[in-house]
Amino acid sequence: MEKNTKVNASILIIGNEILSGRTQDTNTSTLAKWLNSIGVNVSEVRVIPDHEKTIIETLNILRKSNDYVFTTGGIGPTHDDITASSVSKAFGLKYEIHKEAFKILESYYKPGEFNIGRQKMCWMPEKANLILNPTSGAPGFNVENVFCLPGVPSIMKSMLGSLKNKIIGGEPILSHTISLRTVESEIADKITMIQDKNEDVEIGSYPFFHAGKLGVSIVLRSENQSKIDTCNNQILEFVNEKKIEIVDR
Amino acid sequence: MEKNTKVNASILIIGNEILSGRTQDTNTSTLAKWLNSIGVNVSEVRVIPDHEKTIIETLNILRKSNDYVFTTGGIGPTHDDITASSVSKAFGLKYEIHKEAFKILESYYKPGEFNIGRQKMCWMPEKANLILNPTSGAPGFNVENVFCLPGVPSIMKSMLGSLKNKIIGGEPILSHTISLRTVESEIADKITMIQDKNEDVEIGSYPFFHAGKLGVSIVLRSENQSKIDTCNNQILEFVNEKKIEIVDR
Repeated sequence: MEKNTKVNASILIIGNEILSGRTQDTNTSTLAKWLNSIGVNVSEVRVIPDHEKTIIETLNILRKSNDYVFTTGGIGPTHDDITASSVSKAFGLKYEIHKEAFKILESYYKPGEFNIGRQKMCWMPEKANLILNPTSGAPGFNVENVFCLPGVPSIMKSMLGSLKNKIIGGEPILSHTISLRTVESEIADKITMIQDKNEDVEIGSYPFFHAGKLGVSIVLRSENQSKIDTCNNQILEFVNEKKIEIVDR
Repeated sequence: MEKNTKVNASILIIGNEILSGRTQDTNTSTLAKWLNSIGVNVSEVRVIPDHEKTIIETLNILRKSNDYVFTTGGIGPTHDDITASSVSKAFGLKYEIHKEAFKILESYYKPGEFNIGRQKMCWMPEKANLILNPTSGAPGFNVENVFCLPGVPSIMKSMLGSLKNKIIGGEPILSHTISLRTVESEIADKITMIQDKNEDVEIGSYPFFHAGKLGVSIVLRSENQSKIDTCNNQILEFVNEKKIEIVDR
């Protein structure tokens, strides 16, 4: 595999509700697609509980081994929202009221509504940079290479736009999918040979079952479109030879 | 928090397709619900790529820090299915044809269909125990406290039944949910006080937006039903006092 300007991120999902199975995480997929689109490769995802020591230890591992870390969850007003205080401890920074966040929330709520619970959402690591929240006022924040976002998927997603200029990606990771009416074991040998000839293209093979029929999606990923095209042509060649049907998917 | 016979598991999702955002993982939620129902707490989830060194290193960390590890993905017939060989290396075991798995697959396929690709699915760590697959023939396997399941959600789910007797759980983790027509910041103080008085109950607070209205689900989790009941009564008391509407959800 060619060494290039690969930029890596890890995603840290914080929340007991994911670990209990009560809530289906969708933030990983949203973040991963967005990161890929700006040339950032997701190297690892971890899901951990709302537990201070675990958050601090995990964050201190991930922020050293990745260009970026994105956390979701635990920045709301309730007792189980401990991400901001834990991030402060991970970096050895004071946990204090962020003046700009305070102003934003003070003007977001009606007079008298900016209660103690809501004020908790202004407490952040000192000198944190805000990540603006166009949906529900309360901002996320960023310290060095760590970006802390809320857990509610629609709110999290709405905050990505404002992050685009803060993240410096590498070459965008391009992908191409060929879906075939076959089963994996019929094509495994050929695909292995093609993978061996195309080291700079990552070939994934994913069986699917759709509309009552089995199929396999072959996904080609690379930063280099012409390498994807070469690999694609080699696949189409044996697909035509073996008279395997190509399907839309 | 009371120390008891808590049994912990971690889930290791293996697959580039989850990290690229192409595929939405649902195995975590399926496994977590099932594990909770048999008294096993999920302490951590990791998602990692189909990369041998990463699989070996991660597995060797997780299997030492958890009672059980469940992996999904990477046990099919194609070149990117490297879970079985990686597990062998992690345990320092030979990677070889599992005779029983070979027999199962040989009789599962029609004569002449049991090709090299399919035979790959019989290669496992030596002396692995099989996990039977009622859906598509190819078994999963288990070595010591590590259980390897396929990535396709419907197949993975169908294999859990046969695992029940192999996993020894602690006390089942019970839960109770109260959904309220309010927002988190209106009840955060009260819930914090109730959490402080009920150390053996884990209280989670989760905002929701449903049918055009905002609400909060309060989730109480414990191995002890009477402790959940006590906590629940304290919540109902202030909910009645504050005239907060309880909603079905």
